Amino acid sequence: MITLSSDFGSPYPAAMKGVILDRIDADLVDVSHDLPRGDVRAAAFWLEQVLPWFPPAVHLAVVDPGVGTDRAAVVVRAGEHALVGPDNGSLVPPARTLADDADVEVFEVTGVDPDSATFHGRDVFAPAAADVHAVGVADLHTLDRLRPADSFVDLRFPDPDVDSAGATGEVLVVDDFGNAITNVPGDVLAGRVGESATVNGERVPVRRTFGDVPAGSPLVTVGSHGNVELDVNDGRGADRFGLTAGDAVELGLE
Amino acid sequence: MITLSSDFGSPYPAAMKGVILDRIDADLVDVSHDLPRGDVRAAAFWLEQVLPWFPPAVHLAVVDPGVGTDRAAVVVRAGEHALVGPDNGSLVPPARTLADDADVEVFEVTGVDPDSATFHGRDVFAPAAADVHAVGVADLHTLDRLRPADSFVDLRFPDPDVDSAGATGEVLVVDDFGNAITNVPGDVLAGRVGESATVNGERVPVRRTFGDVPAGSPLVTVGSHGNVELDVNDGRGADRFGLTAGDAVELGLE
Amino acid sequence: MITLSSDFGSPYPAAMKGVILDRIDADLVDVSHDLPRGDVRAAAFWLEQVLPWFPPAVHLAVVDPGVGTDRAAVVVRAGEHALVGPDNGSLVPPARTLADDADVEVFEVTGVDPDSATFHGRDVFAPAAADVHAVGVADLHTLDRLRPADSFVDLRFPDPDVDSAGATGEVLVVDDFGNAITNVPGDVLAGRVGESATVNGERVPVRRTFGDVPAGSPLVTVGSHGNVELDVNDGRGADRFGLTAGDAVELGLE
Repeated sequence: MITLSSDFGSPYPAAMKGVILDRIDADLVDVSHDLPRGDVRAAAFWLEQVLPWFPPAVHLAVVDPGVGTDRAAVVVRAGEHALVGPDNGSLVPPARTLADDADVEVFEVTGVDPDSATFHGRDVFAPAAADVHAVGVADLHTLDRLRPADSFVDLRFPDPDVDSAGATGEVLVVDDFGNAITNVPGDVLAGRVGESATVNGERVPVRRTFGDVPAGSPLVTVGSHGNVELDVNDGRGADRFGLTAGDAVELGLE
Repeated sequence: MITLSSDFGSPYPAAMKGVILDRIDADLVDVSHDLPRGDVRAAAFWLEQVLPWFPPAVHLAVVDPGVGTDRAAVVVRAGEHALVGPDNGSLVPPARTLADDADVEVFEVTGVDPDSATFHGRDVFAPAAADVHAVGVADLHTLDRLRPADSFVDLRFPDPDVDSAGATGEVLVVDDFGNAITNVPGDVLAGRVGESATVNGERVPVRRTFGDVPAGSPLVTVGSHGNVELDVNDGRGADRFGLTAGDAVELGLE
Repeated sequence: MITLSSDFGSPYPAAMKGVILDRIDADLVDVSHDLPRGDVRAAAFWLEQVLPWFPPAVHLAVVDPGVGTDRAAVVVRAGEHALVGPDNGSLVPPARTLADDADVEVFEVTGVDPDSATFHGRDVFAPAAADVHAVGVADLHTLDRLRPADSFVDLRFPDPDVDSAGATGEVLVVDDFGNAITNVPGDVLAGRVGESATVNGERVPVRRTFGDVPAGSPLVTVGSHGNVELDVNDGRGADRFGLTAGDAVELGLE
């Protein structure tokens, strides 16, 4: 099985599918081709949320604001999974969620001509994903074109500051529902459901779920990803709070 | 085969795919993840339009404005098909189209913890769909977690008023082309192609198809679903007539 | 394998999938259902870009501004591939890219009732694609419902005027990234990377790739399709240059 993720929209992902199916017989599963464009951190976040639900697979994932620069192409083995894409940090957080650090290895795809005007998703990453699938994740180190990477971009999500008075964090991503998902761990809200918190100074109810406030009303809750979310029932929390990815969030709990 | 429908956009549907594929080997077919958000009636309409074209399958369909409330999770058996999703009425109209009423059974998924902050599509409905697929639709009553539902939300589309002077109905959904699809049956236009009708007082040509009026011109026609549609050739009928889902439509035929 | 392309958005493509899967067991691969609406030339362009990457397959491709008119339904055999859709020119350029002219044959699907209010994607093209898949591309001429077409719409992309001073062409399509892709062949820029060109009178750097100009800056480059593109790094070239599909482009190289 090969999953496909990108920020390509349509129809560029289809060329990647064609390249893979022309080389091997594999089940293809679209994860998303509407990941936030060029947002490496959002890609890492979403891949980390979604890929662990899959059985062992090869995950082709291309969100690549550095296309045409000389960033490397990498294959990251994470236990029985492999991730294939650009070396920009997008693959490392999901790899660390898929497997223990000791079971994560990063390989560089060699022989990529940085001067050719190519579509790397189609011409570099899709063939590499097909090759990894063909040889099997356990044996991917036997592929001639892969060599252990000397270094790689090791993206880490920013750590929030948490104390008894609340937390200072930031919005990691805004999802399709308009929910502003922060980097603040959900346990800061433990025992506070039914009470209220302040979000950048504004008092907002803390609730278990959307349905616990009227339509159109804001709430602070914990999403299925385990992080604090700023939402509106039947509305867009990010718009309501005037927040976008990267914006600071001051969560007050006193 | 398991078909997937939702209003989740991207990338949440992928987690449902992962959960299913981690449990069973099944062909997955995306129906749509862009159903009108939180619109139970539109979901019922579209599922009723699309699912009958499929061979017997398990249909996972999650449009769920009541997420986080205590609405039940249901499996609806409709002949050789099964639909899995929230008990909000979205599954019953397509079930009645897929099979005779006598061959429709509604089961409740038991053991769902309403207090856990879960993503029901991923944590409740996708596993249930996988279980139904694994045991087979004919034997789904043998699943321990299912029990016949005491009651369920029995959504019916509103009936239009039809007489010789015309019809009073409403817009059920606006499709991606901007066509306003009403609940008025197409036979009210029988024998009137080439004539005109009034739509909320405005006179509009009745035509067999888009191409029978100039680009940009409105028309009343019968869509492939068999209902009266308000359209614009090469344009958006809903915008032209100022109509959205739920709005009243007075169709005059004198 | 059957690939599916359309401008239907959601959820109409699912009915085509159901019809096919109800008739035959085939792998379905979505190419795109968001092709520019009703733009036959854009459909031809994108199909030509994407389909040649696939192994031999049946390609169902429906971009059909003439729905409801009496344009024919066609099956185009191109070597070991077959394309199925409306006779409006959208299928011929990709067919010519998939195979030599001598190996391209156009068949008409007979027995289509032009007066029935049908959804041709679902009721004509999807069944035809399933039939072609079932009998095999090499034997599609044995299908009773197909007969060699007496004539067909032979769409050709417009030829640019190229001389030593530059080129006069037009924008063929704008892609999802906002890049304005022209009909001017990329070789006119050979040896000019690092220099500049004029685009409709404005001086713009000629660069190998996006990353060679600052974010927000325009550039002229050659896309992976081999044509001259007008782009903005981390922006939308079509908006920046005020261009849309069909607009004239004067490229000055002196």
